[in-house]
Amino acid sequence: MLPRGRPRAMGAAALLLLLLLLGFLLFDGRLRRAAALDEDPGAGPGDHNRSDCGPPPPRPSKCELLHVAIVCAGHNSSRDVITLVKSMLFYRKNPLHLHLVTDAVARNILEMLFHTWMVPAVHVSFYNAEELKSQVSWIPNKHYSGLYGLMKLVLPSALPAELAHVIVLDTDVTFASDISELWALFAHFSDTQAIGLVENQSDWYLGNLWKNHRPWPALGRGFNTGVILLRLDRLRQAGWEQMWRLTARRELLTLPATSLADQDIFNAVIKEHPGLVQPLPCVWNVQLSDHTLAERCYSAASDLKVIHWNSPKKLQVKNKHVEFFRNFYLTFLEYDGNLLRRELFGCPSQPPPGAEQLQQALAQLDEEDPCFEFRQQQLTVHRVHVTFLPHEPPPPRPHDVTLVAQLSMDRLQMLEALCRHWPGPMSLALYLTDAEAQQFLRFIEASPVLAARQDVAYHVVYREGPLYPVNQLRNVALAQALTPYVFLSDIDFLPAYSLYDYLRASIEQLGLGSQRKAALVVPAFETLHYRFSFPHSKVELLALLDVGALYTFRYHEWPRGHAPTDYARWREAQAPYRVQWAADYEPYVVVPRDCPRYDPRFVGFGWNKVAHIVELDAQEYELLVLPEAFTIHLPHAPSLDISRFRSSPTYRDCLQALKDEFHQDLSRHHGAAALKYLPALQQPQSPA
Amino acid sequence: MLPRGRPRAMGAAALLLLLLLLGFLLFDGRLRRAAALDEDPGAGPGDHNRSDCGPPPPRPSKCELLHVAIVCAGHNSSRDVITLVKSMLFYRKNPLHLHLVTDAVARNILEMLFHTWMVPAVHVSFYNAEELKSQVSWIPNKHYSGLYGLMKLVLPSALPAELAHVIVLDTDVTFASDISELWALFAHFSDTQAIGLVENQSDWYLGNLWKNHRPWPALGRGFNTGVILLRLDRLRQAGWEQMWRLTARRELLTLPATSLADQDIFNAVIKEHPGLVQPLPCVWNVQLSDHTLAERCYSAASDLKVIHWNSPKKLQVKNKHVEFFRNFYLTFLEYDGNLLRRELFGCPSQPPPGAEQLQQALAQLDEEDPCFEFRQQQLTVHRVHVTFLPHEPPPPRPHDVTLVAQLSMDRLQMLEALCRHWPGPMSLALYLTDAEAQQFLRFIEASPVLAARQDVAYHVVYREGPLYPVNQLRNVALAQALTPYVFLSDIDFLPAYSLYDYLRASIEQLGLGSQRKAALVVPAFETLHYRFSFPHSKVELLALLDVGALYTFRYHEWPRGHAPTDYARWREAQAPYRVQWAADYEPYVVVPRDCPRYDPRFVGFGWNKVAHIVELDAQEYELLVLPEAFTIHLPHAPSLDISRFRSSPTYRDCLQALKDEFHQDLSRHHGAAALKYLPALQQPQSPA
Repeated sequence: MLPRGRPRAMGAAALLLLLLLLGFLLFDGRLRRAAALDEDPGAGPGDHNRSDCGPPPPRPSKCELLHVAIVCAGHNSSRDVITLVKSMLFYRKNPLHLHLVTDAVARNILEMLFHTWMVPAVHVSFYNAEELKSQVSWIPNKHYSGLYGLMKLVLPSALPAELAHVIVLDTDVTFASDISELWALFAHFSDTQAIGLVENQSDWYLGNLWKNHRPWPALGRGFNTGVILLRLDRLRQAGWEQMWRLTARRELLTLPATSLADQDIFNAVIKEHPGLVQPLPCVWNVQLSDHTLAERCYSAASDLKVIHWNSPKKLQVKNKHVEFFRNFYLTFLEYDGNLLRRELFGCPSQPPPGAEQLQQALAQLDEEDPCFEFRQQQLTVHRVHVTFLPHEPPPPRPHDVTLVAQLSMDRLQMLEALCRHWPGPMSLALYLTDAEAQQFLRFIEASPVLAARQDVAYHVVYREGPLYPVNQLRNVALAQALTPYVFLSDIDFLPAYSLYDYLRASIEQLGLGSQRKAALVVPAFETLHYRFSFPHSKVELLALLDVGALYTFRYHEWPRGHAPTDYARWREAQAPYRVQWAADYEPYVVVPRDCPRYDPRFVGFGWNKVAHIVELDAQEYELLVLPEAFTIHLPHAPSLDISRFRSSPTYRDCLQALKDEFHQDLSRHHGAAALKYLPALQQPQSPA
Repeated sequence: MLPRGRPRAMGAAALLLLLLLLGFLLFDGRLRRAAALDEDPGAGPGDHNRSDCGPPPPRPSKCELLHVAIVCAGHNSSRDVITLVKSMLFYRKNPLHLHLVTDAVARNILEMLFHTWMVPAVHVSFYNAEELKSQVSWIPNKHYSGLYGLMKLVLPSALPAELAHVIVLDTDVTFASDISELWALFAHFSDTQAIGLVENQSDWYLGNLWKNHRPWPALGRGFNTGVILLRLDRLRQAGWEQMWRLTARRELLTLPATSLADQDIFNAVIKEHPGLVQPLPCVWNVQLSDHTLAERCYSAASDLKVIHWNSPKKLQVKNKHVEFFRNFYLTFLEYDGNLLRRELFGCPSQPPPGAEQLQQALAQLDEEDPCFEFRQQQLTVHRVHVTFLPHEPPPPRPHDVTLVAQLSMDRLQMLEALCRHWPGPMSLALYLTDAEAQQFLRFIEASPVLAARQDVAYHVVYREGPLYPVNQLRNVALAQALTPYVFLSDIDFLPAYSLYDYLRASIEQLGLGSQRKAALVVPAFETLHYRFSFPHSKVELLALLDVGALYTFRYHEWPRGHAPTDYARWREAQAPYRVQWAADYEPYVVVPRDCPRYDPRFVGFGWNKVAHIVELDAQEYELLVLPEAFTIHLPHAPSLDISRFRSSPTYRDCLQALKDEFHQDLSRHHGAAALKYLPALQQPQSPA
């Protein structure tokens, strides 16, 4: 080893020796790179194993923007693509531009997700898959990915004309390395090569897997299209559009349909134009299909780069090493996506929309302020994954009503009962970590009751910060409700079995929304017992009330919250009756979907619903109590979030500060009319 | 790019050109590597940036064993070291041998952890820090790490004589890369260099940080000892033992104490023997101390390798980029350690103890068996982290009793009340994910009641598999109880305020364990109300029972479970009375610590306590009901684990199969005496 600061002292002889040594390594590397799957599976062009550091890997410069295209449709693929993106972001060191070809469902999900994720140095563009359908729908296709599987073929024309290079990925791949190493392989393309692909790691295209198996034509084992390097510029020049259509049409004269979607057509084109393809090292697409030969690749390789779950069985594929690969997948499935919001040092990039203002607002907070945690939580932008599970939007019906609520993991047990009580659409916001979101998924799959309900939309809001952002959650659920009316409920309430039908009838009869600006009040009760037989009618409910098996809601601790509902009048009422707002009133109401939003400044516990009712009253919504409606609160242990703060002495002070600020805003919007609410805001708050 | 298979066709001229180009890059790399922090912070010897692929990094061969030494003492450092190890394991591709110098606390924790973690290709050796103390205790030291901070100095003699190379790490470092890249830097050592270190990224040793600041001597900024490459062989040869002692003694003549522990002495030795040190690239020890200049390093580097939280404030250090670094740390803090149980392909290694039998047993399971999940769960070896938080063992007292229970996240709210009711020692097993363990930590820290209790030992058992391993959890908590007696309770029970004192008195009076082989029964009651005023005496309890505010436990659903306690007799009893075992009896009992273990085959819910009482009875424990003892069950929502399986039709069948197997084992151990329990095993199980 040379001492520091004296490199020039090195003798010319030593330099020469080193050069020769390097030359040998380089040459050796070249030799190895010529090998294919059968001979030397780990190696291939640009496989920088320790034994062939050889050609200096021309990795992209530090801040070069890398382009990635993914076709994604539907709820389940959207979840998959997020796991793929998480793995990519974990290892990446370059700015990325994602080009997402999506259907309406995936676009709705992913647009919101990336908007709220705010990852620095990630730009996302969307392309409408519906518009591209006609270009591939003429191809008969038997692959499970359907029409969307074929869309990779039209990327050269669908992506912007100025885009020259792109990495195309299937949604079922997982990165175990930095994508810039993959991008670097573009430099290995000859002047005419335009498509970089890894050889297939199954014998499918050899046509000998079973009797009468007649695959599409391919070079040898063919190539797998789960990971593609595309020189879009060269493909456009070479007339790719014509090229693949001609080949596909010709093959379809003798072959009935594609079995493997785009992959069949890519392979058929390559067989005809072998000069187009640059084979990539196998580690960039380790294929875990049913008949995989991938072990030849990964057992020799020192490094796995990309894992491809290309069996229809996905993670359930039978493979003796599947546990090993599954661990990579689970790593990113459960990885806290918030941790990927890290900037790239030394790569100045346009911050995501809103990020700069957010940073400024956060920077202006005073860490010594006793309410610092409140202020920080209010400013937190939570990642939101709407319609996390498959969801069927309700058919348009003029008086339909969606139950809106929010919950965290400790209330999942309520969902089955809620589904039995409310047969209509629901929009639920769930406050979860990434790992909890997966537990939630398994919970739903394990429940026949829940799995059968396509009209319940679950929106995952990812946890961040110490305080429960109750009103932000309510607003997410409310914004995603698709019916003209919403029932603003809480997760620990079970509505009367008849409530859904009764509300729709009442909305129609009362002309809610159209003729009448009103909020329909659903009277609230509570039971203190776990085991409890739910009343099937108002008569039964009143009987239970009379024997003390039920109480009006929070009768013992905070009757003010529901006193204006006037339970005595409700007992006798035959028709809806109007009640007046009073301090601390927080009934459960049915309103048109375009009602005022909840005030997101109320985080943690206290005043979150009260403020909303104040706003409704200030906007002159009538409050109409429905005579046959009721909902019952079930007992539960205090949530962790509540117990953490209940005892805090600063908690009440901070809540009072929030209330003061709320009233200032109220005065700004409603002028002197807001004076009405001032005494209410100065009263002591309920004991939690 | 050359087409495949034709490397030999390359002309000699092109080869020469390439060689020259490589030579230039190499030379350029050497130049850059000569730079120090001030000039070019990112570079340094062996810093393989894209711009200096230069000398082929001689990374260790695929299966070379890498040695790592860490000094670790106490509960908190043990948690830190696990996060460090997780980060190391995530990126590593080589077998590792960890050499852990520990105090008794850390050894107890880490030995159990690694034993149950069963990570392939990780070998762990322990060295007794107590035995090394005398070698460093003469050095006055002001650093927060105390005596343990100095122990790195004695590693050359403490580690095995045949060990030549070792990487030494502080517990507060996090890896962001493969440790083999660090190991590779040993190859850069000259023939006489023995210590690889990164330069200090603060001006501490320049002595100009504040007035009258007189640091120990160092070369320039000195070196940081958070990450050290040690050539142990050379240090031993060079007489390291004498060398550092001489230097330290001499400096201590004029300096009062070390401020930075071992680091002061390493630097003083290096100042005297500069030929010993090989400077390492700064990215291998990015120091986030209070006055750090690390930005000069990381903003220029393309890659971070190791982050060092070397401020006493740790993650709370003030640094404008701390969020970025914290994300790396949090990644591994919350990472599911089970996912690191992945083997190294192509590196045959001795499987961890027990792993082979486990693999065989798992391989013999039939996936089609409807009880497959039960059988798999029974075989699962859970990672166990005993005494997760600081814990003071109870002083030895002959009649002391530890409350033993288990819980998961959804019962954390019980802990404060439990602490108020039970002033004695507790041993609690918590079934958590890695991320939940961190939430648990924050929960305890936020609670003055819990944070004040040093006599409550929390043992984290990491989640794996779909069924709650209730009896495995109980056994972990039971095995860690340190008093002669244990009260086997459940987390949703609150004992009478006087129970702890009363039990100790009863144990003494009855001569439990010594004269009498008995289990003391604590009668169980329940309330169905959340808000409930806990009785302060038996008289108060009986009054509540009479007005229906309390019931005997599971009075409505399953009176058989506690009927043998004979509540009518208990009302009147003045002295302990003996009761007979009967089918389905599952009382809460106090027994000597060496009592039979719970049967771990009962996973999920049902029969887990009943089987334990059967075993006690079979082993001829008397059942003695205590007349003044009581414990009360509080209501709670059904846990997620219970609701998932309650409705499953196969669940009961599997439970019956477990019961049958339990009885077979019982017969094997107790012969004809086990016949007594046969009818009980064939009875229907309680409805929950």
